[in-house]
Amino acid sequence: MSNKLIEPKILKGFQDTLPNTALQRKEMLGKLELVFSSFGFSPIDTPALEYTEILLGKGSNETDKQLFRFTDNGGRDVSMRFDLTIPLARFVALHQNELAFPFKRYHIAPVWRAEKPQKGRYREFIQCDFDTIGTESKTADAEVLGVISAALLKIAVGHQIRVNNRKILSGVLDSLNVKERSVSVLRAIDKLEKLGREVVEKELVEEAQLNPDAIQSVFRFIELSNSNLDSIALFNELTSFLSVSELGLAGVKELKEVYQRAQDFGCNIEDLVIDLTIARGLDYYTGTVFETKLKELPSIGSICSGGRYDDLASLYTKRRLPGVGGSIGLDRILGAMEELGTIKKKSSPAKVYVCVLDDMARQSSIQLASQIRTAGVPCEVALEPSALGGQLKYADLKGIELVVIIGSNEIANKSAPIKNLATKEQTSAISFSEIPKYILENFLK
Amino acid sequence: MSNKLIEPKILKGFQDTLPNTALQRKEMLGKLELVFSSFGFSPIDTPALEYTEILLGKGSNETDKQLFRFTDNGGRDVSMRFDLTIPLARFVALHQNELAFPFKRYHIAPVWRAEKPQKGRYREFIQCDFDTIGTESKTADAEVLGVISAALLKIAVGHQIRVNNRKILSGVLDSLNVKERSVSVLRAIDKLEKLGREVVEKELVEEAQLNPDAIQSVFRFIELSNSNLDSIALFNELTSFLSVSELGLAGVKELKEVYQRAQDFGCNIEDLVIDLTIARGLDYYTGTVFETKLKELPSIGSICSGGRYDDLASLYTKRRLPGVGGSIGLDRILGAMEELGTIKKKSSPAKVYVCVLDDMARQSSIQLASQIRTAGVPCEVALEPSALGGQLKYADLKGIELVVIIGSNEIANKSAPIKNLATKEQTSAISFSEIPKYILENFLK
Repeated sequence: MSNKLIEPKILKGFQDTLPNTALQRKEMLGKLELVFSSFGFSPIDTPALEYTEILLGKGSNETDKQLFRFTDNGGRDVSMRFDLTIPLARFVALHQNELAFPFKRYHIAPVWRAEKPQKGRYREFIQCDFDTIGTESKTADAEVLGVISAALLKIAVGHQIRVNNRKILSGVLDSLNVKERSVSVLRAIDKLEKLGREVVEKELVEEAQLNPDAIQSVFRFIELSNSNLDSIALFNELTSFLSVSELGLAGVKELKEVYQRAQDFGCNIEDLVIDLTIARGLDYYTGTVFETKLKELPSIGSICSGGRYDDLASLYTKRRLPGVGGSIGLDRILGAMEELGTIKKKSSPAKVYVCVLDDMARQSSIQLASQIRTAGVPCEVALEPSALGGQLKYADLKGIELVVIIGSNEIANKSAPIKNLATKEQTSAISFSEIPKYILENFLK
Repeated sequence: MSNKLIEPKILKGFQDTLPNTALQRKEMLGKLELVFSSFGFSPIDTPALEYTEILLGKGSNETDKQLFRFTDNGGRDVSMRFDLTIPLARFVALHQNELAFPFKRYHIAPVWRAEKPQKGRYREFIQCDFDTIGTESKTADAEVLGVISAALLKIAVGHQIRVNNRKILSGVLDSLNVKERSVSVLRAIDKLEKLGREVVEKELVEEAQLNPDAIQSVFRFIELSNSNLDSIALFNELTSFLSVSELGLAGVKELKEVYQRAQDFGCNIEDLVIDLTIARGLDYYTGTVFETKLKELPSIGSICSGGRYDDLASLYTKRRLPGVGGSIGLDRILGAMEELGTIKKKSSPAKVYVCVLDDMARQSSIQLASQIRTAGVPCEVALEPSALGGQLKYADLKGIELVVIIGSNEIANKSAPIKNLATKEQTSAISFSEIPKYILENFLK
């Protein structure tokens, strides 16, 4: 073995997760999982590696270039998963006889994309998806909105869910006789908020080849969305606007049902907005579609999007599997919370640090730390005695707020003071046996 | 797009995690994380892909063959991580100036090995490691034993931690003048329990080339371990056995300290056993070594092993980083619990299912389910009304024990009965507003 050091570098577009970020992410994931579970969504997992043939599925060139793809030792063409949707489709097709439908699952796992790395975009990131598979019931759509509302309330971010139905947009196109160009039209409309009316108009002419009358109709329809009508008036207007399109009327009926039902699932009506311009880029949504914005930071874009699709796994099974689901953008939310200053810098899960000043204090300190833990409070204890200054600095660096200070004097009196590093205040000496209770009652309520 | 279906198969040696297993694993991981956190260990994560050069490090042929290795689109030689130890070493070397030492971290993440798949061994599995880095303090070793004890108590598996110190074995070899063959001797001894005395003796002659006197000494030493002496008497015997070896005496002193200190960290003395034959296969352990067995199923082998090492990251940095840590075998524990029948078959996290018998009952059912959730009880509600039989079957399939049954009669009386699918008992009708409290007090205490 040579003594030359290997440079400890990581791959471009990848990142380590240090304790501070890992703690924040775990806290957030824990809350999301509690909410998913509370609605009866079950966790699943799938392999990181799949047959390339499975992942490519419909096989767009764009996806192909994004794959980490290679030939394994057995000569198989394999790739790392680039999303959780295709693995879900493959999973449901493979295990359909072992699952009870409607199948409600969530999946939180890393995915890999060999994209050009950009600020805030990595080649490895965690996706968080949840879906209800195998039902046409619009109650499932409403439940998905209820889950989002509960999840974002739980992680305490003010939000607005903007909901629409693809059939309404399709109905509009239908009534304009441009159904066969609907994908182009929907793609153009989807860009309205980001790029403005002019760009969208240009795209409607050039890409979707709409005539001026049709374009005017499209924008009249969009204005309905910004009309500040209450929901009942809006649904009435829509019904008359779409009276010639059966599909459009079906969409209005579905949207109305989902909008009303979502409230029974706990959605706050003020946080739920009908937005007729939301189309979602993906072609496979067929009914409900939604996006979610942060009230305090709408500029970062949608933090949770999704919708209803007609058939999840048509590539892998003949069984038709309609469903509805959403995807929560963890990194985007964490980034926003950091920007808004609503998260603490903390690199340790411990809430208490027990300082040990001299050898005499060691055993009692370790035992006291055990008792603090038993009371349910995470607690780190100094491994070796050392000067107080260095220990306080260590606790502060790790973001541990409370410090119990134990030396030979404290051992003699079986009591020790607690210092709060945030306020710099220090209590008088508290009896060892009282310390766990004291901490719970005075610092952690 | 052709209509030919793609077969929804997965790669050999890989597996999907279905809800039942995923729920069990999540529950266990949640408990382990609580314990790690309670001792002040912080989570971290590292990329699934690393430069092959980093992962190969010392570069054994055996490791090389196990790698999922390929050239990425940028022409880099990359591999999927095959353990969490090398990524930890690379991580600490890279971030040493951002971390506070002693650095206490845990890491729960999948690893990939291109091994021949066998029963119970997969090419992708989750590792669960925790370590304290950057301290020589034997208190850290004792704390690691405390963590294991607390973790296994938390997941309710009866266990026995068997602890030793490599310096004691090295001291024995030292006193026999076979130090330069120590790796072969330790490897042989490590096989004693599994393969018996005869095999080990043969290996000591053939591989380690010990003479009969030395072999007799080795076995006299091993017998000390089986002598049923109490710990104080054992330490005295060891001190006299090893009186000619400074290294051996240092090992006895360390083992004594760790054994005694572990109790301050909450280790139950009955579950902590000194076992002088434990060497651990890996060459890099230099002090404390331990294994952990299930009391009720010792045959499955060690469920948590580890030890102290002199220098974690010498391949990547000149800074010496001694440390101590352990690795918990999740799949082995889950397998054992399954074998012992201590886990429930359950594919839903929900504890309550609200059946909906007719259209009239829908809104109230959804609202009641929301209230049950608000009370902290996971609850799934039927998306569409249907016959009771099918709904009961669905709840039972998913392992949801409690069912609230709501139809138009129940709506009229604003009260509904609760059926326990495990006992087949059904309560009389309970007022809607009382149901969440009733469930908490009568079924979930």
